[in-house]
Amino acid sequence: MPIGSLNPIDIGDIAMTSTLTAPQTHTHDEKQVRQLIADQTSAICAKNLEQLIACYAKDAVLFDMKPPLQLQGVEAIHQMWAACLPCMPNASGTEAQDLSVTVSGDLALAHWIFRFAGIDSAHPATQMWFRVTAGYRKHQGQWQIVHEHCSIPFDPTRG
Amino acid sequence: MPIGSLNPIDIGDIAMTSTLTAPQTHTHDEKQVRQLIADQTSAICAKNLEQLIACYAKDAVLFDMKPPLQLQGVEAIHQMWAACLPCMPNASGTEAQDLSVTVSGDLALAHWIFRFAGIDSAHPATQMWFRVTAGYRKHQGQWQIVHEHCSIPFDPTRG
Repeated sequence: MPIGSLNPIDIGDIAMTSTLTAPQTHTHDEKQVRQLIADQTSAICAKNLEQLIACYAKDAVLFDMKPPLQLQGVEAIHQMWAACLPCMPNASGTEAQDLSVTVSGDLALAHWIFRFAGIDSAHPATQMWFRVTAGYRKHQGQWQIVHEHCSIPFDPTRG
Repeated sequence: MPIGSLNPIDIGDIAMTSTLTAPQTHTHDEKQVRQLIADQTSAICAKNLEQLIACYAKDAVLFDMKPPLQLQGVEAIHQMWAACLPCMPNASGTEAQDLSVTVSGDLALAHWIFRFAGIDSAHPATQMWFRVTAGYRKHQGQWQIVHEHCSIPFDPTRG
């Protein structure tokens, strides 16, 4: 994977990564979206289900890394995370790269790649990079995830 | 896959699918984004490389179904499609479902699922549903793809 050529990201004011760049200037809304991404990451690493679910809008649609094809609505997403969080690696955080956040009015788009940090170096997830794309909506002054798509590339030569 | 419970989509004024719903009311920008999605789908099915590449912004970032992890910039995307289009199934179109398009100012977000239509029923791609998430930016009055994420779910139990 061409990771070596990628740039480390500035996720905002929260040090969710070990490869932060120098501070950049973001609008208030951009900072809030970046804070939401950091909060969600913290919740996943802490396996804090309630904090994690609070990031999602009621009508959020999730394209998860694994089946089913999609999850529609926060109840389905809640059930998925309740089943998945106990199985997640015990990570100290994530190493994220190439974060892009774009805000226009009450809509925001973000995408980045990440891998888990601080886990056993022999764990398969140590070497696994994930791609995330997310859409956000500001509802009553609060940014929420309305759509999330997480995947790994499918290599047909590796089955 | 829980396809049976999904709703057919209205992709706009172009009949890119065989399961169109009744016409809905969309804003001018929503119609333009839906038209771009239809144009891109047509270009893929027609294997028209130039029409397809014209859909992308110069700085677009693509998370494709297969490796590498990401493609940055339209030149890299051009090279990928030039290599991939000849290998794509000869499809009459696509069957798309659950299209969501949200526009705010010069930013738009869309996501949907689709499979190829009109191909040999024994072809593996006939039964394969893909998830697509895309971000669009209006530049000089023209909507362009700035980000695209296409994947299939990864089932660890199937290798």
